[in-house]
Amino acid sequence: MQGPIALFTDFGAGSIYVGQMHMAAANALSDVRVIDLYHDPAVFDVPCSAVLLAALLDQTPEGTVLVGVIDPGVGSERAGLAIMLEGRWLVGPDNGLFSAALARSGGVPDYYRIQTGKEPRSQTFHGRDIFVPIAAGLVAGRQGGLIWLKDPSTTVTAGIAADLSPDLARVVHIDRYGNIITGLRGEHFSQSRSFTVGLHRLAYAEYFAAVREGTCFWTVNSMGLVEFAVNQGSAAEFLGLTVGDPFRP
Amino acid sequence: MQGPIALFTDFGAGSIYVGQMHMAAANALSDVRVIDLYHDPAVFDVPCSAVLLAALLDQTPEGTVLVGVIDPGVGSERAGLAIMLEGRWLVGPDNGLFSAALARSGGVPDYYRIQTGKEPRSQTFHGRDIFVPIAAGLVAGRQGGLIWLKDPSTTVTAGIAADLSPDLARVVHIDRYGNIITGLRGEHFSQSRSFTVGLHRLAYAEYFAAVREGTCFWTVNSMGLVEFAVNQGSAAEFLGLTVGDPFRP
Amino acid sequence: MQGPIALFTDFGAGSIYVGQMHMAAANALSDVRVIDLYHDPAVFDVPCSAVLLAALLDQTPEGTVLVGVIDPGVGSERAGLAIMLEGRWLVGPDNGLFSAALARSGGVPDYYRIQTGKEPRSQTFHGRDIFVPIAAGLVAGRQGGLIWLKDPSTTVTAGIAADLSPDLARVVHIDRYGNIITGLRGEHFSQSRSFTVGLHRLAYAEYFAAVREGTCFWTVNSMGLVEFAVNQGSAAEFLGLTVGDPFRP
Repeated sequence: MQGPIALFTDFGAGSIYVGQMHMAAANALSDVRVIDLYHDPAVFDVPCSAVLLAALLDQTPEGTVLVGVIDPGVGSERAGLAIMLEGRWLVGPDNGLFSAALARSGGVPDYYRIQTGKEPRSQTFHGRDIFVPIAAGLVAGRQGGLIWLKDPSTTVTAGIAADLSPDLARVVHIDRYGNIITGLRGEHFSQSRSFTVGLHRLAYAEYFAAVREGTCFWTVNSMGLVEFAVNQGSAAEFLGLTVGDPFRP
Repeated sequence: MQGPIALFTDFGAGSIYVGQMHMAAANALSDVRVIDLYHDPAVFDVPCSAVLLAALLDQTPEGTVLVGVIDPGVGSERAGLAIMLEGRWLVGPDNGLFSAALARSGGVPDYYRIQTGKEPRSQTFHGRDIFVPIAAGLVAGRQGGLIWLKDPSTTVTAGIAADLSPDLARVVHIDRYGNIITGLRGEHFSQSRSFTVGLHRLAYAEYFAAVREGTCFWTVNSMGLVEFAVNQGSAAEFLGLTVGDPFRP
Repeated sequence: MQGPIALFTDFGAGSIYVGQMHMAAANALSDVRVIDLYHDPAVFDVPCSAVLLAALLDQTPEGTVLVGVIDPGVGSERAGLAIMLEGRWLVGPDNGLFSAALARSGGVPDYYRIQTGKEPRSQTFHGRDIFVPIAAGLVAGRQGGLIWLKDPSTTVTAGIAADLSPDLARVVHIDRYGNIITGLRGEHFSQSRSFTVGLHRLAYAEYFAAVREGTCFWTVNSMGLVEFAVNQGSAAEFLGLTVGDPFRP
């Protein structure tokens, strides 16, 4: 058996829905390991969440089965996909949540459509009832319920991935310290450049202590993304940005 | 070994008490699986929490040992019970927290009283020091410390369960999206009926997209409970209800 | 294999950093058990966090590898330590976070310095990239990357531990019920004494129900620490104290 199953949802850490996802995994495969990757991205914001998911996916071991659910209206997803990408499975709705991971990857993905029965829609909690059982099956080496797609270009996910700029000039996350995590990959930006946000011009610094207290700077963070930060302060307050806000790249 | 141990408390997800419960389980049985089912029901509200617990219990695999602690004053519980109900154990205080699960079940429960020593009361954290070790023992197949009750009708739990209306016309949970989860079981209500809350009359709809944006409706949710919801909105705001509020069934 | 790995950080329960710590552990050792001990101590407050960590460490099984990270500026730690103390490993920065555990222990610790390469500082998330892999190695019985310190007195940790008053007359935690947990060990205070906080004089009581509703008292809590509490109320509101506040011991 491989694994783990990694959960990435907008259900909220500790919410009643997350507990049910864990229980569904235990139901399907009693000894599968389940890791809460993240449950509090911007609610219903698929593009920003997709960038976070892509950055976190880079850190997973081979064999990981990532279940991703950003769910504007529980139970309303049209279709489910399972995508094999560089030794990891992505399982979730066909709404673009996996598009950034696909656009940023050099690998060749395999797409599978998830077949489902005709449950009453309101009573179906797709993450719990469909995606987690499929994921548990994949951990156990079973691909039941999956149909390989010869032409994945018809999926929403592949369509978005094809059009996607590989870097997203938006705030994708603000951490508890007020650091601003963007959708730009650090490797694509020269340390000699600066970012302009409102009236502020941010120069590059390698780490916090390299700038004066209270100075706002940009750096490449531990997820490989461009981050705006203030030494001993909150960049979110300093710059007046919130999650989802665009800025000039 | 079976399991898992499932934790249902009002300690708050991520609180210092939850960490200690997990550590106590690792102490008692190093490889037992522990799942955080839910830690944020309405604090000290036993009847509403009991309904949530019952709905979640339905989703657990056989062999689950559910430790439930709603604790108006840590360390003050009078007695502890372990109840075997349809292949699952319920372990916790004798205060009615398990009564809804018992009232809604068709199974015949076996009640056991938990024997405890004479610890100093203030220093005893019952969930950590008594219920989790008992639960770990049950996972390992040991019933040490349990005395079978020939006549469980003397317990608070059985007394409440006997009197309990099987459906509770109160708000038992509001999720992060503002959906209102009630204590009514969906299977008991005809889709042709409506609910009246304040000045609002809510008709049934099978799912969100079946009604106009902004419309408040009732449905049967993924836990089998009657839920009030608004398409693209918050039913809690729309109806002005909070957790614990009663309404006309 | 032993373990578990226990995580104690100020990253915030459910934060994106905690998910990455779990994933790093799965990466390093696929079947290692990881327990979230606590992630929400007062941010950046090393002395108060150190007391909580010491109290929680007492509850861990032998073989536990505790990774502790309180991190005023991610990536800025100067050095890392691994300390073997009474059958448990402590792994984290050399900043005093482990000093209370050392000062309160009767055991003789062994100190090891963690050797690290020359990573770019901003992109290094020490907890994820250094401490968790070291911890996973220790669980597996490997001490690679550790250099035993013949004279640990040169470390910040040992220096603070040597000077540390074994009891800290500050509020180290306030729980969701408003109970105030202090850094004083209960065994060192006679039940006949009282504490004076502002205009209030708090007498000892063994448990909540032993005093009148609304009465503020002190007790010894389930972590062995002096706690200020109000029967059916919030001691934090009653006394007007917040985390970190000092009081007269």
